[in-house]
Amino acid sequence: MLDEAIAELKFNEQSLIPAVVQDATSGELLMVAWMNPASLKSTVETGKTHFWSRSRKKYWMKGEESGHTQEVVSISTDCDKDVLRIMVHQTGGACHTGYRSCFSWHLRQGRWVEEGEKVFDPQATYKK
Amino acid sequence: MLDEAIAELKFNEQSLIPAVVQDATSGELLMVAWMNPASLKSTVETGKTHFWSRSRKKYWMKGEESGHTQEVVSISTDCDKDVLRIMVHQTGGACHTGYRSCFSWHLRQGRWVEEGEKVFDPQATYKK
Repeated sequence: MLDEAIAELKFNEQSLIPAVVQDATSGELLMVAWMNPASLKSTVETGKTHFWSRSRKKYWMKGEESGHTQEVVSISTDCDKDVLRIMVHQTGGACHTGYRSCFSWHLRQGRWVEEGEKVFDPQATYKK
Repeated sequence: MLDEAIAELKFNEQSLIPAVVQDATSGELLMVAWMNPASLKSTVETGKTHFWSRSRKKYWMKGEESGHTQEVVSISTDCDKDVLRIMVHQTGGACHTGYRSCFSWHLRQGRWVEEGEKVFDPQATYKK
């Protein structure tokens, strides 16, 4: 039945769909990443978000290296069935730069100003 | 200066960037649509969201037909500068189906279940 629900979605020509990840408690937008049918299936079956990395061309579970996993609360889609919304409980921070949210660059007087809540030290978290 | 900020963004091969539109008061995810440099510039300059329609291949101002415009509160981008977050005050509903949010289809027991807050009658709002 899950396969049928996944088949109803409109993936793009690379078989990907954007997934908007929001904090289930605060509604804060945490990150946007891409899923393919297999990573969505893993997300549903494990209850942890899985994505497809376009740059690294591989599956990844959010937090597999950092420990900053996302526990899935709900999965929704839009009227065109071409975008997903994933509500999660976020451990630590969603952004690899150390911010809780990836959306920490704000347009002010025509410039991007960096401002957010740093919740971890990326250098200590990600090994090279 | 705004042109430089726009030039820092990573548009895709069709010169488009996804824009995640959230209700500035409640944090509710309203819709996701695509912007090109010109529609982002119009969004900043007019204070109302403008997008690029991939299917109709034209600019559109959200609400130009329905009156359900979006007043821009803030514009942010993510660590990769390849997605925008637009916080807005939404007049009426964001979804052309009559729902306040486009994200009104929810995965429950392996099926998409339609459930949302209908705030207008699309047949009365959109003329054919």
